[in-house]
Amino acid sequence: MQPAPMSVPWWVPLWASAISGSTVLNILSPDAPLLPKRPPSRWTPDMQRDTPAGRLPAHPSEPEISLWLNTPAPIRLPDLEGRVVMILAFQMFCTGCAREAVPQMMRVRQTFPEDRVAVIGLHTVFEHHAANTVEALTAFLHENRVTVPVGIDAPGPRGPLPLTMAAWNLQGTPSLILLDRAGRVRRKTFGHVDDLRLGAEIAWLLAED
Amino acid sequence: MQPAPMSVPWWVPLWASAISGSTVLNILSPDAPLLPKRPPSRWTPDMQRDTPAGRLPAHPSEPEISLWLNTPAPIRLPDLEGRVVMILAFQMFCTGCAREAVPQMMRVRQTFPEDRVAVIGLHTVFEHHAANTVEALTAFLHENRVTVPVGIDAPGPRGPLPLTMAAWNLQGTPSLILLDRAGRVRRKTFGHVDDLRLGAEIAWLLAED
Amino acid sequence: MQPAPMSVPWWVPLWASAISGSTVLNILSPDAPLLPKRPPSRWTPDMQRDTPAGRLPAHPSEPEISLWLNTPAPIRLPDLEGRVVMILAFQMFCTGCAREAVPQMMRVRQTFPEDRVAVIGLHTVFEHHAANTVEALTAFLHENRVTVPVGIDAPGPRGPLPLTMAAWNLQGTPSLILLDRAGRVRRKTFGHVDDLRLGAEIAWLLAED
Amino acid sequence: MQPAPMSVPWWVPLWASAISGSTVLNILSPDAPLLPKRPPSRWTPDMQRDTPAGRLPAHPSEPEISLWLNTPAPIRLPDLEGRVVMILAFQMFCTGCAREAVPQMMRVRQTFPEDRVAVIGLHTVFEHHAANTVEALTAFLHENRVTVPVGIDAPGPRGPLPLTMAAWNLQGTPSLILLDRAGRVRRKTFGHVDDLRLGAEIAWLLAED
Repeated sequence: MQPAPMSVPWWVPLWASAISGSTVLNILSPDAPLLPKRPPSRWTPDMQRDTPAGRLPAHPSEPEISLWLNTPAPIRLPDLEGRVVMILAFQMFCTGCAREAVPQMMRVRQTFPEDRVAVIGLHTVFEHHAANTVEALTAFLHENRVTVPVGIDAPGPRGPLPLTMAAWNLQGTPSLILLDRAGRVRRKTFGHVDDLRLGAEIAWLLAED
Repeated sequence: MQPAPMSVPWWVPLWASAISGSTVLNILSPDAPLLPKRPPSRWTPDMQRDTPAGRLPAHPSEPEISLWLNTPAPIRLPDLEGRVVMILAFQMFCTGCAREAVPQMMRVRQTFPEDRVAVIGLHTVFEHHAANTVEALTAFLHENRVTVPVGIDAPGPRGPLPLTMAAWNLQGTPSLILLDRAGRVRRKTFGHVDDLRLGAEIAWLLAED
Repeated sequence: MQPAPMSVPWWVPLWASAISGSTVLNILSPDAPLLPKRPPSRWTPDMQRDTPAGRLPAHPSEPEISLWLNTPAPIRLPDLEGRVVMILAFQMFCTGCAREAVPQMMRVRQTFPEDRVAVIGLHTVFEHHAANTVEALTAFLHENRVTVPVGIDAPGPRGPLPLTMAAWNLQGTPSLILLDRAGRVRRKTFGHVDDLRLGAEIAWLLAED
Repeated sequence: MQPAPMSVPWWVPLWASAISGSTVLNILSPDAPLLPKRPPSRWTPDMQRDTPAGRLPAHPSEPEISLWLNTPAPIRLPDLEGRVVMILAFQMFCTGCAREAVPQMMRVRQTFPEDRVAVIGLHTVFEHHAANTVEALTAFLHENRVTVPVGIDAPGPRGPLPLTMAAWNLQGTPSLILLDRAGRVRRKTFGHVDDLRLGAEIAWLLAED
């Protein structure tokens, strides 16, 4: 007697070639459902759920930037109030950043108007410091068609962590931060956020009074 | 003297293997920018821009359905008012539907709560009529894990077009229709809509009073 | 003190969105290295390693086909001798078949010349029998641009398994079978075989005297 | 009267999001069919067809390497004779290289045994020279899990082209070069080669006496 035959879902080969024995589940941030099943009278998504109380201030500290690229003048968070802000903390040599998160950042830039949604990169180098020169980052941004402002997170006085990454308690790269129009942190996630969810959250923040 | 060397963007091989000489641009619906550059006082996306006046009523006619699957009772549009509604018109043997649009429909289902967003399939058969049996559609839905209600568009009295497809003036499959919470058509697009844009539009419609 | 930050490999989001909690490893056939580390004097890949002795005859039994599509006349294995033969056992409603294996079959067809490599589909229906009409398969082949001959595996006298699938002891769909130029089974694998490996194996079989 | 409805092939959205108005066909090298339709008595693929006579010597000149990475000792082509050799000319900031060609190079490494097939990277910097430090390349190789030997093409005395790239008349990055077991150039292609074809060609070269 033979076992019952099975058909293979289409994503098995993708998965099998991608995973090659690694255990990666634990590095994904827990992804709460986007929307509560039972909304209040005026329903709102609970995007701050990923951020346990006390781990990040409602208003983030001002980033410590050693150099800005792709912008004629430094950017300060208070200047962005009134707009929804997406900040992507990335490293150019992090493959998850280069292949997924940076292209997603540019898709966000192309989907939403600049005067309603600010999109900013934050280059948070915590490994391969000698490799991460300004010249390399400039080439990376050029070849990957990154046209949004990118701030280089200022190196820390000791240890590998740059200042903003430490102050904001980011867990790694890529990390995605969404600020509402009042400048409050509404999402801070290490890892990937699906396009559908990200588009919904940005639009929701846009719609808030 | 040789020509200046070039480096190949990563998407060229994908494109080259996909396109194989076809010209397809003209079958894509024109995709207006999601958001106007100069928003009104309370800014709104102009999602109805794809739909020239007169081509589709503000409230669509009730679909003519010969059979509903995945639902204990027939669905009527007035029952859905108060919710944002996504309707995907598809054919199971259309490869763009099976590989892209149907999975996207299920991503929408999994991202938004059922009591806020209704997701419905409309099987609009206009070719291969003999192949599109109820048994085949049932198997397709099962294997593709489609759990949302799917209505089979009723055959037309003459010609290949089913009744709802003709009444709604759909141009082909897949077609994506978004209804706002008052039941008005806010998007009707033949072809693909990016996840980021689709998520944003659904959330925006959710946020409307 | 915080944990060391990590960067996310690019394939984590693909994996995470694909896998959604399933356990699938066990349905993948063990994939032996393509080539032995220590080759014999005239080195050969051991492609028959996946097939334990006795599970499949060196020469497969003649397929029992109820109907051939895409060919003016029935195909018999002895007619193919002298050519390398790739046979893909598939079901049109199996998503792994429709999205991965069938396109791969057509890539093989387009890469190798017809008079050197025969490519044949075998529609082995073991589930959703009522859905798998000739009309549905014809539509599927048309829309997926499958131009190679496809034989419909004849239904079994009792139970869901069709005759050839049972005779060849196939474990499910998709299954890939390679015959060498003498008509012997050199690979029989349930699941996915990478393009690189598959191309290598076909070429190797072509090169055999 | 309305136009006949159409269904959208699955690859249209991929294509549309990738291409965004560019014209890229002309930068793809012409890809001859892998195998001639009418083979000679002992059939061979004509892999040298991409290389017009006189553009590259049958045996390439020895690469001029300023530094080798991932190898304890410099590699010289004569040392590799008896093995099939795949050389990938790439730049780490070329997105087509980073996302497609470098992963393909590692798939080749994992598919074929090291004592039969040598896989070597050649870092041919012809733009963004200041960005392409040894430290940056080392980080890139580490994060992309590139374990094969990589030689840095020596800078040219004048102009942006490095010495080996100029000597071999490479048209850009990525470029793929295959040497047979006698050290002769059998393929030299600027752009992408499909996995199926590449696997077949390597296996064919392995099978040559």
